[in-house]
This record gives sequence, C-alpha cells and structure tokens, in this order.
Amino acid sequence: MNGADSLCDTLLANDVDVCFANPGTSEMHFVAALDRKPRLRCVLGLFEGVVTGAADGYARMADRPAATLLHLGPGLGNGLANLHNAKRARTPVVNIVGDHATYHVGFDAPLTSDIEGVARPMSHWVKRSEHATAIGRDAADAIATARRAPGNIATLILPADTAWTELSAAQAAPVMAQVPDAPKTTPDCVRAAAAAIRSGESTTLMLGGAALREDALEIAGRIAQATGVRLISETSNKRVSRGGARTPVGRLPYPIDLALKMLSEVRHLVLVGAADPVAFFAYPGKPSRIMPETGEVVTLATPDQDLVQALSWLADELGIAATAPRLQSVAELPPLPADGKLDGPAINRIVARLLPENAIVCDESITQGREFAQLAEASAPHDWLQLTGGAIGIGLPLSTGAAVACPDRKVVTLQADGSGMYTLQALWTQAREGLNCLTVILANRTYATLHGEMIKVGVTEPGHNARRMLDLNAPPLDWVALSKGMGVEAVSVDSTGDFIRAFEAGLNHKGPFVIEALI
Amino acid sequence: MNGADSLCDTLLANDVDVCFANPGTSEMHFVAALDRKPRLRCVLGLFEGVVTGAADGYARMADRPAATLLHLGPGLGNGLANLHNAKRARTPVVNIVGDHATYHVGFDAPLTSDIEGVARPMSHWVKRSEHATAIGRDAADAIATARRAPGNIATLILPADTAWTELSAAQAAPVMAQVPDAPKTTPDCVRAAAAAIRSGESTTLMLGGAALREDALEIAGRIAQATGVRLISETSNKRVSRGGARTPVGRLPYPIDLALKMLSEVRHLVLVGAADPVAFFAYPGKPSRIMPETGEVVTLATPDQDLVQALSWLADELGIAATAPRLQSVAELPPLPADGKLDGPAINRIVARLLPENAIVCDESITQGREFAQLAEASAPHDWLQLTGGAIGIGLPLSTGAAVACPDRKVVTLQADGSGMYTLQALWTQAREGLNCLTVILANRTYATLHGEMIKVGVTEPGHNARRMLDLNAPPLDWVALSKGMGVEAVSVDSTGDFIRAFEAGLNHKGPFVIEALI
Repeated sequence: MNGADSLCDTLLANDVDVCFANPGTSEMHFVAALDRKPRLRCVLGLFEGVVTGAADGYARMADRPAATLLHLGPGLGNGLANLHNAKRARTPVVNIVGDHATYHVGFDAPLTSDIEGVARPMSHWVKRSEHATAIGRDAADAIATARRAPGNIATLILPADTAWTELSAAQAAPVMAQVPDAPKTTPDCVRAAAAAIRSGESTTLMLGGAALREDALEIAGRIAQATGVRLISETSNKRVSRGGARTPVGRLPYPIDLALKMLSEVRHLVLVGAADPVAFFAYPGKPSRIMPETGEVVTLATPDQDLVQALSWLADELGIAATAPRLQSVAELPPLPADGKLDGPAINRIVARLLPENAIVCDESITQGREFAQLAEASAPHDWLQLTGGAIGIGLPLSTGAAVACPDRKVVTLQADGSGMYTLQALWTQAREGLNCLTVILANRTYATLHGEMIKVGVTEPGHNARRMLDLNAPPLDWVALSKGMGVEAVSVDSTGDFIRAFEAGLNHKGPFVIEALI
Repeated sequence: MNGADSLCDTLLANDVDVCFANPGTSEMHFVAALDRKPRLRCVLGLFEGVVTGAADGYARMADRPAATLLHLGPGLGNGLANLHNAKRARTPVVNIVGDHATYHVGFDAPLTSDIEGVARPMSHWVKRSEHATAIGRDAADAIATARRAPGNIATLILPADTAWTELSAAQAAPVMAQVPDAPKTTPDCVRAAAAAIRSGESTTLMLGGAALREDALEIAGRIAQATGVRLISETSNKRVSRGGARTPVGRLPYPIDLALKMLSEVRHLVLVGAADPVAFFAYPGKPSRIMPETGEVVTLATPDQDLVQALSWLADELGIAATAPRLQSVAELPPLPADGKLDGPAINRIVARLLPENAIVCDESITQGREFAQLAEASAPHDWLQLTGGAIGIGLPLSTGAAVACPDRKVVTLQADGSGMYTLQALWTQAREGLNCLTVILANRTYATLHGEMIKVGVTEPGHNARRMLDLNAPPLDWVALSKGMGVEAVSVDSTGDFIRAFEAGLNHKGPFVIEALI
C-alpha cells in the first residue's frame, strides 16, 4: 500500500470510478496503483484537451465527477481550455496532476513548472499533497469541493514521492468526502421574485444550471402557464432537458443585437441560477450588460443554491398548485427537406426530426446550429449539452465523456469543423471504447463566426492576410480520412437525401460514426 | 490608424514579420490591421499548440522572434505546453494575446479568465497594454525582452479596445526595441575553467544554448583537441550544429543510470551556457544531481552571457591559437541496412546516411531515436533541434516553423507516434504553406517511454488498466489517412527497402510528405 493506492481507494469509496487519463513518467506509481484497482475504469485520451472535455461530458450526464490524470504543468496546460468550459458550466471535476518528487522540484529539471500557477485560473480549488499520509484526506476534500453545488473544478497535485511512499493499511484507509447540501434561498428573495411576476409588467424568468433540468422545469412550466411569465435560458448551458412534453425554454441569442432585442422590453428579470446576462464580447458603442438600465434584476436563487426548492417556494408563494397545468411547447417539427443541396438549415431540420428518444446532443455547431435549438424543442425528449465557456474544441471530448457515462443512450454531436480540429483525437478514444457517438461535422471550411465578426469591425471584403486566418478551404480537411485514421467509420455527404440516409445509418451503427456534411 | 496598426508597425519595424496565429473575436481589429500590412506573413495553425511550437521552430532557425496571435486565456492555454518547451530552449517568442475590452472584463463574460495567471508560468515577461497609445512602447519592450540573450518568452495582452482605439499618426509611430548586448563572463571565471582543464584530472566541458552553434563549437573543438577535455551537451538542446567537419559533441543520456555513469568519473565539470545537470525525473534511491558530490562544477559562462567570447577567452587563457587543429569526428556512417523488417535502429542508420546537406532535423523520436544523435555525427552538415522541455507534441509544429524560417532547406522530422498525435494539426499548416517538411512517424503504437518507466517502478507485467493507458494499438492509428485528411501526401512502410525508397522520394518531394514507419 502506498500513497497512490490510498488515493485510488478514496476515489472509489466516493464513487469516483472513471479516470480519464494521459499519464507520464511522474504518474507511473499512480498508474501502477490503478492497475491494482480493476473497478476504476481508465479511459485514455491521446491529448489532454480530450481528457478534460470528456470529464466534463461525463459529469454533466452522470451527476458525479470523474477523475482526470494529467502529466505536470504542460499536461495540465493542454487540458486548460476544456477545464475553462467545465468551470463555466460548474461541472464537478477532480484533476490529479502529477509532479516531480517534492525534493526534486528545486533542481529545476526540464519538465518543472509552476503547476499551481497553471491550475489556478481554471480551478476553484488547488492543493498539493505534501505527504502520502495526507493523500486520502486531500482527495476527499477535492471530491467534496468538486461536488459542492453547483459543481467545482478541484485540482490535486500529486508529487511522485507522495505517490510512491509506503503506508500502513490504517494510514491508507479511504476517507469519505463530506458534501454539504446546497443552501436554500431566502423568503425575501422568493417574495421579491413573486412581486416582480405579479407586477403585471413584462417579466422574464431566466433559468441557469440545475434550473434547466426536468424537475425544475416542471415547476417553472407551471409558473409560466399560470402567470404568463416568459422562460429563457442563458446563451450557453451545461445541460438542458428538452423535447417531448418538457417545458419549453427560450434562449438568449449569441449575436449582441439579437440579445439586446430579446430583453429590450423586459421590466423585471428574475434570475434562477443564472447570471445577470452580459454580451459575449464587447463591441464599440454597444453595452456590456444586456438588460436595459431601466429594468430591474431580481435574484430568486444563485447558482449554488437549491434551485428546485427555490422554484417550488416561488410556486407556493404565487399560489400555484403542484397539479396546475404546465406550459406546453407549440413548436412543430418541420417535414424532412426534399432532396437537394445540403446546408445548415436542412441539417438542423433533419437532426431535429430524426433525433431518437433519450438522445444526448452535444452542440458545438457554432454558426450553423443556431436554429437547431429552437427546432429541437419539438424533438423526442433529449438532453442538450452546450459549449459553455466559449473555448472551442469541446464537442468531440464532451460526447466521449457523455457516452462513457450513458452507454445505453445515443450521443449525437453537432460539430463545427474549425472547432472539431482542436481536439479531433477524441475520435480515437471513441473507437477504442466503442462509444455510441454519432458525430455530424458541419464542414463549411471556414471560421464562419469570425467572418461575421470581421463585418462587425467594418471589414466587408477581407484581404489576403485576413482570408488566410479565417478560411480553412486550402487544403480542404477530409474528415472521412481523419476519422478512418483514428479507427472511426465515416461518410461524406453533400445532399439532403444522402445526409438523411447517413444519419439513419449512423443511428443504427454500434460504436462511433462520423458524417462529414459538406455545406 | 488604431492601436492594432501601431502594434503591427512596431513589429515590422523590428523585423518581426511572421505571425503564427489562431485568432478569435477579440482579435478581429488586430486581424483587420494585419490585413493592411501585406509584409507581415500570417500563418494559421488549426490549434494553438501548433502556433506556439511553430514560433519556437521559426526563431530557433531565424535567430529572431516571430509573433504569435492567440485568443484569450483558453487560446493561450492551448499553446502553453509548447511555450514551456520554448521557455526551456530560451527561444525568443512574442505572444500577442487578445482580451475583452478593458471595461468588459469586469462583467465576467463566458470567455473571461485570468490571462496573466495563465501566461505567467510559461512566460519570462507578461504585460497588459492598458491604452492604445501605449501599444507601440509595450510591443517594443516585448520584442526587446524576447531578444535579450539567451532569449525569452514575452507575452503582451491586448484588450480589444486598445486595439480598436484611433490614434494620430504621431501616436501610432513604430517604436524601436532596444536590445542590450549579451554580458561577458569574468576573467575569474575564465581562469577557474582553465585551471580545471589544466589540472590533469578528468574534466568535461558541458555546452548549452549558443555554445552548440558552429562558431562556438569551432573554438571548443580547438580546446578539446589541444587539452583532451571532453565535450558534451545537455540531454535536450535548442539547436546543435552537427555533421560534416563540425566539432563532435557527446550528449548526456536521458536514462538516469546512463547519465550517472557518463559523469561518474568526472572531477571537474565546466559549464558553458549549460546548467548543472539534473535527472529528468526523480526515482526512489537515485540522486537528483547527476554530478558526483566529489566533483567540482565550474561555470565558465551562464546562458545569458556571450558564449563565443567566453570560449575565445578560455582558448586564449590556455594559449591555444586560432589556427590550432580542431577535434574531428571519428564516427563513420554505417552502411544502409539490407532489406528486411523495419525497426528503429534501421531507420536511424538510413536517415543518418541519406540526410541531405544543410538539412534541419527536428527530433521528437523519444525512445526510438536515441541512437540517431550519435550516428548523425557522421552525417552531412545539419542543424539538430530537440524537444527541450519534455512537453511532448513539439515535433510537427517545430518543423513547421523551421521550414517557414528556411524555405530553401529540407526539414526532416523524426516523430514518435504518441507525441505526434498531440499536435497533428500542424500537418495542415505544412500543406497550406507548401513547406518542405519530410516527417517520419515512428509508429510503434505505444508510449514506449512509459513502458520503460513502468519497469523502473517495478511493474514488469502491466495489467488491464496500465496497458490501456500505455498502448496505442487498439485501434491502430493510420497516419497515411490522417495525413491525407490534412492534405499531406503519405506512405506507410514496414521494410527497410521500402523505407529507403520512401525517404528518397520524400527528399525529392516538393512540399510536405509523411512516412509512416511501422516498427
């Protein structure tokens, strides 16, 4: 029994039984310990952005954290962008980052770096385990921190010698994480929210985090039906229960002008686990806050609070019975498009219509998928996972992790090509693990968002340098070849008819499948 | 004229005329400014690890920095691992990292992060440009810092509004960087080094950084020939002038036991721009320092000092004339292997023999290429660039940057497959730019280093979990398909005869070419 065993046992005792990993030399004692724990499932990513993005997708669906295993500062660095997304989603993640032996750090060997410094910007909690006897306690603290509502990124640094130091059985005994219940909102907040809704003035309920899950939406839907208050979500959300008979929720648009327009008439914005909405980026002459200065923002509950309880109290305050009717979607699925040239809107219609019951949708469609959300309100019931922090390269890893968490559900990923290239190595993990991931690559061969942004800065005809930074068409990426290179079956289609056939085939395919949709 | 124009003009005025880039929305004004400066060559990387690794390769060969353009904290995060390598190599790099407008940061929009925090661990210098009028001065400081010997990572954070704010022509005038000369070593240091060499006891001269370039090696070679002192380099080096009639230099081995053995008898170790050697990793019961405690370490010159001058003074002190004979390599190229099953040693022999005059070798061969260095001492003259910081994923980006710097030279990359997967997106940039990069993928389908390290921690028969974290064979990666997917021609070979033919074809090929060597 050594420190690494103690760490593994504490992870397992607290139901952390999946480890997304890309280990190196300093983690070998931990790998050796994992080898002694067959209950801990190790999933290799060929790049750390895959590892951290998969941990995010896993925890969004499993509602408990996975561990990651990363190799010193550079390995953690490679995982930072998707940790940023997970941090913004408030997904629970327990990072284990190996380091040199404590006595070796001062020698400044080539792989030495300030790991705490690398970890801190994308972690809610960072700790270095100073001795093998402390690992169990430290790991339990990391897990408790990760699980504390609404979810946190906990990074535990594991020096090689704390991993390899021998312990007695008593010293190595697993430690249980103490996770506090989410705090409750206050009666004052409930009354203030109720007053806003009763005012008769234009009021919107903005739902975030756990308020977008089925149980919370159930209550929000009764409130909306009874009072006429509008329900919307933030632009980017961790996980939304959607489709079927679930309560429909609008979404604040990404483009600044559309976002401003959506809230321009709102007098009262009631936040339920959401933040006061701000522009994704600043633009000259446009405000940073989206709410008009004349409007009022009322917080029913903050993201760390029990949002189901808060909505339930609000319904009580408004006198709405638990049996009251609930807001229903009036959206209807458009018919499948006729055969013809494939484009983004056609793909959105087809996917919305063919989406199987209980699917998980990972959405990194960027420009091309903006209509999908609205259409899929009428789809079969599904969970919808989004890019939460704006750091592109989440889609393929997220779907990988979601599929590990939910092996019996189909994971459909809408993946922009430019973003997909960031972490394409995830396809290999999907192949190795035989994951039921159906990925649609929206191959427009450009950073289309940026073309839009160039117009906003006044450049309507990009020149040589700008085009070479925004376009991906020379040479064109061949996603069928890229997928094949990582052991994933793939087809390329450019007509609606072929896309429909490929999508149906992909749904019936066991294991990963990629459709390159040329649009 | 705006702040972004001022930045571009200052870059150009200081001969920073290549920008490796992956921009986002917050950098659009900078992209628009680049579009007005056709002299600034913009090279797109489809992932930021490609961008920073290419900037490293460029500067190692061009002896001046390139700029990088990165998108906020996550974009910089994606580039950190190769910045770590560049920092360890002391390569000059000027990072431009876009941020939200100054007034927008406080609103905590989804892409907001602590960019200074992300930058600091892998930068020597970090600054935020607070106003458009300061950008010229700040950029000149960044360039001066990057160029100050032996080279530094300078990171300039560019808020969107400092880029877009209008300036008068006078305010926007380019600022010249003031780069100080490298300081000189002291007569005391020269005398101490000379005394060690004259002692008659076992003495080794350990060369690092600029001491491994042709002009310095010329002098070191005369010293070695006249005194019998041994010349070695560190394990990982930025750039070594090798082959042909150049002074041969040994190399401290990576495996700890071999490294200890190499220095076990040394009484005096004279450092010339190298660090007191330490183990790459710590192992239970092994020392961190490689030099025996009984030995003496003498510093002739530190990495920031003028190393050619230091060696020249040392030669003078030892009374060695500038016309004195120089140490010659006694290595001979082994013949090409007979046709048969391909393996690492055969590849090393073939590449060493066929390497064309003036080639650039980018070496991320990890386990398979350890013999290459010694063999290639007898190759045609070439520059040899290594993985300096141990953060894998440098090879393909490094060769990309080196080829941009030296369009008339052939860049041969020895690339381990596991490491290559980290930043395979570099192949696309090679295709787009038509770079003369010939890449050999050493496809052993495993993290072979880690198998070796597992044995060192006592695991001779890895179990299920360990094998799944160390092996890359299920499914096998298909590098021909991966290369094709990014527009690069490729072949797969598994015999020495086919490898020889493929390597010769690759040398004659214009533009990038990949050989998947199944070993």
